This record gives sequence, C-alpha cells and structure tokens, in this order.
Amino acid sequence: MKKTAAFLSAPLALVAAPALPQSPYEIVEATTQSDWRPIAPDNLLVMTLGGGEQVFIELAPDFAPVHVENIRRLARAHWFDGIAVVRVQDNYVVQWGDPTEEKALPEGIEAAPPAEYERDAGEDWDFAPVTSGGYAFNSGYVNGWPVGRGTRIGENPAPPMETAGSLAWLVHCYGMVGVGRGDNPDTGTGAELYTVIGHAPRHLDRNIALAGRIVEGIENLSSLPRGTGPLGFYETEEERTPIASIRLASELPVAERPHFEVMRTDTETFRSYVDARANRSGWFIRPAGAVDVCNVNLPIRRAQ
Amino acid sequence: MKKTAAFLSAPLALVAAPALPQSPYEIVEATTQSDWRPIAPDNLLVMTLGGGEQVFIELAPDFAPVHVENIRRLARAHWFDGIAVVRVQDNYVVQWGDPTEEKALPEGIEAAPPAEYERDAGEDWDFAPVTSGGYAFNSGYVNGWPVGRGTRIGENPAPPMETAGSLAWLVHCYGMVGVGRGDNPDTGTGAELYTVIGHAPRHLDRNIALAGRIVEGIENLSSLPRGTGPLGFYETEEERTPIASIRLASELPVAERPHFEVMRTDTETFRSYVDARANRSGWFIRPAGAVDVCNVNLPIRRAQ
Repeated sequence: MKKTAAFLSAPLALVAAPALPQSPYEIVEATTQSDWRPIAPDNLLVMTLGGGEQVFIELAPDFAPVHVENIRRLARAHWFDGIAVVRVQDNYVVQWGDPTEEKALPEGIEAAPPAEYERDAGEDWDFAPVTSGGYAFNSGYVNGWPVGRGTRIGENPAPPMETAGSLAWLVHCYGMVGVGRGDNPDTGTGAELYTVIGHAPRHLDRNIALAGRIVEGIENLSSLPRGTGPLGFYETEEERTPIASIRLASELPVAERPHFEVMRTDTETFRSYVDARANRSGWFIRPAGAVDVCNVNLPIRRAQ
Repeated sequence: MKKTAAFLSAPLALVAAPALPQSPYEIVEATTQSDWRPIAPDNLLVMTLGGGEQVFIELAPDFAPVHVENIRRLARAHWFDGIAVVRVQDNYVVQWGDPTEEKALPEGIEAAPPAEYERDAGEDWDFAPVTSGGYAFNSGYVNGWPVGRGTRIGENPAPPMETAGSLAWLVHCYGMVGVGRGDNPDTGTGAELYTVIGHAPRHLDRNIALAGRIVEGIENLSSLPRGTGPLGFYETEEERTPIASIRLASELPVAERPHFEVMRTDTETFRSYVDARANRSGWFIRPAGAVDVCNVNLPIRRAQ
C-alpha cells in the first residue's frame, strides 16, 4: 500500500458505495452552472511578481467600499508597479507595499477612509451559518464571503456575544486580504495590503479593514522566505520580492482577462457541501460533526 | 508614521499606561523560571535538512506512547537519514518520508501500533480550558499541549458533544506533528510524518495519531515550494528536500544538545497570558473577548 498516496486521499471504494454520503469533492463534481457566481472584472486584481508568478485577488466592495475604490484607483494609476513584498511572518501574514514609504499617492485617493471594519447586516442577506461561538455569535457565508455576526460592542474586555445582532464583518480566514493601518483612527489607504498565511488570526476581525481574498496563486506568497526582522519584516532590499504590476482585470484587453467563479453560498448545494466538510467519510473514521468557517474551503474555480 | 512598523506592533504608549492590562509580550517578559518546564532530551528531535537548516520537534509520549517509541527507535537507528520531504500542500501539511517506500524498517519497530488518537483524560490533569465548542466539547492545554475534550462517539455523522466527558486528544494546531497512515485500521508506524502549515485542520483530530509539535524552525518547512502533484506531492526527485538526519537530542554529545522550555499551562501566569491573548489592547480597538486554542501561541523558548 502506498502510504503517501493514501493519506487523506479520496477512497476509491466510495464509488461503489451509494449508501455513503457524498464527499465534498463529489458534491463539487456534481454542481451545475447555477451553483456558481462569476467574479466581475472590476472586482478582480491580477498581481504579477518579479519572476512572473501571478496572484489573483477578488475585491469585496460590499464590505469595504471606500478602501476597495482606493485600491482600484491605485491599480488604474499603476501605482503598485514596482513596490514589493516587505514582510513575511510565519503562521501570520504576507504584506506588500512601498518599501520607501515615500511614493506619492495618485490623485483621488481617499486619505482617511472610514473604519470599514464591520457593517449593518442586510435584511435580505442570505446568511448561511457554519460555526457557532468563538470570535463571533456565529460565522458563516454571505454571497461567497466568510462573515462573522454579532452585536455592537465597545467595552474592553469584550463581553460574550449573546445574539446574532445587526452587524456583520469579514473574517480573517487563510488567504483573506486586508489593508495595513497605523494606530487608530488611521484605517489605511489601501496602498499597503496583507494576506493571511496561517491559522486564522481572528483577533484582527473588526480591528482592520478586510477588502478581499486571494482566489488563486497564494502559494507564490505563502512559500516566500520568512523575514528575519521583527514581525517578519525583511531587513534588506535583496530579500524583498518585487511586484511587477497589479492590474484590474477590467483594464486588461478582453481576450486576456482571467475569469473565476465562486461557489454560491445561498444554495442547497452549498449546505450539502458544508455538511460534507463537517462529516467526512472514507479515510476518516470519526467525522467531526462540525466545521470551522475557515475550514470550509469554499470552492473557487476558473470559469468553464 | 511608518505604517509597516505600526501594523500589529506593540504600542510604545503602553509603557506609560499602567492602568491598561498587560500585553501577552509583557506577561512573557515578567515570567520567572517556575513558569516554564524543560523539554527532556529524549522527547526532542533535531531534524537537519540537506542545506543544513534545522527543525526541532518535541515528542508527546503521554498521548501516543507506542508511536513515539517507534519514532525514537527510527531516530536511534538513523533510519530517517536520507529520506526527504515528499509533500507540501498549501494551507495544509508538509510531509516527509521514504520516497521509495521500500526502505526496510529497523528491528523492534511496532508495525501495527494501537490507534493512539485519543486517550482517557487523567483525573489529576490540570486542564486549562481555552475554547468552547467547535470540534470538541472544549479545548485547552494540558502540560503545555493543546488538547480537545469530549465523549466517546462512533456514529456517523457525529452528534454534538454535550459534556467534557472522559476523553482527551491532541488537536491539529499549526506546527503539530502527526503520523501518516493508510486506510483504517492502519495507524502508521512513525516512518512517515507530517506537520500542519495552515489553518488548523481539526477534522483530522482523533482520525490520525499526533505525536509531537515543532518548537523551532518550522519556517524551514512551511516556506518550501508547494508540490504540483495531487495533494501537494512532489512529482520528481529534484523537487524534494532531502533530510540529512533526524537525531534524538539525548543521543547527541551533552555539549551539543539544544535545550528548550515550554510555558507551563497549569499556572496563574498562563491564565493571564490566555486572557491577554483574548483581550488585546493598544493597536487593537475591539478586543475579541475570546481566543481559539490554536491562536494561543504558547510561548516556547531556548532554555536560559
């Protein structure tokens, strides 16, 4: 028996065992086009690193509209071209920005965006709960985004959240993209961004603006050498990975635009998928019976 | 203001604000020797990669005694020397073993260890609860190890766990080290090991034997190029990182032994530390009020 291939692989026997629940893979395999929503070209960033590797980022204007508009303007002005990855902290974040911190921002950038750390939950939102408790009253998915729900709090220390409340916020799952900021009330302009490359640092939720997520190519950032300075900052220019360009897909020639689709989260298919993620079979002998919002691994694919 | 330095750094103003609660860093700074326990040389593995980089692993004989004894025997027989990292799957695991899968195991290896996936919780255990619900009734720390608690379950799908019950098991936090296995009832011999390099895959808890954790040097594994084959396996020999040797610290000359200490988890200091991790101040404007067991970031240091 090849142990390497067996560890966590889908058991072949499942094919002949119709009584077993479907695996997450089988559910994805059986989706139809209506189970997916496209990512609009104006919500898709194409980041090209110095060596030509690409990273694709979906923006989240429903959650951080001013920050997202800043990021779009920076991309349209080609402001990101020539900046660099400045920080890689193991089990935490990769961060990119202007190493000199002196590059002038283009015209039209909102220098002090509002604190888009949480928002009122829309009454018509189709919130699919996944996880109870922990860092929020509950956490789940809205329109393909991982979201926490809770009440407004201001105390320190924070009280436990007792109701779902009226607030919603993006949560810091692996691959989410946020806007670096200084001390409060600075919320960051969007010129310095980071992504999560470790266990979800959910203590950052509602403390900093999340503005998107990586949909493909995160391995080109997560496998970079860790910085040796405090907080994983690189200490020399040689260590930094240059960023050749960041473009909005909507600015690329139509024929060159990449197209991605996110599994819809307001469907029966998604509920089955979450249930299958919580109750793995085959190789697994004790299904967990639950799944963390950041372990859902929402399917995202190139458009068919 | 240098934004790069400010993002998540400890605010200098805290020093002059005694009314604020202590930060996690300040609590660690104020520890005394009695807040730490040493790692015994017989529970410490020193892995040296082909390029000389080192990774240090603490073994967990209280949770997986037969698997740990196998791993010790493999190390003493120098069996690991010359094997390789065979798999790097982003946001999941790094796995190392014998790429040929034909290397004979040394004498004395238990070929079919028991399923050391959970154990009876000791009545005298000093369990420090951290997280409620989710993948266990609750999760916390015992003697410096991240542990889930719950009742015995066998059903599929699993029912929610309603009491802490009598069982305890190591949980799959970032950096934990487990024993690759094939299909049940195979539990793996210890000749193939993996470590977590992403969001805690807690659906693996109680499905596979955890036998330790990395205490230093994980960045030498987590920053390796991701494998391009299915499940992140490397497809060619050239992609693999060779492992020069894995030694028990107890087999090294006394003068060459590394010495590590783990923060004790049965102390008031640890409870303060967890509370501080749950209620961050300074740069943070909304403390979470809770902390996930895998976000505790238990302090581990070189012995003073």
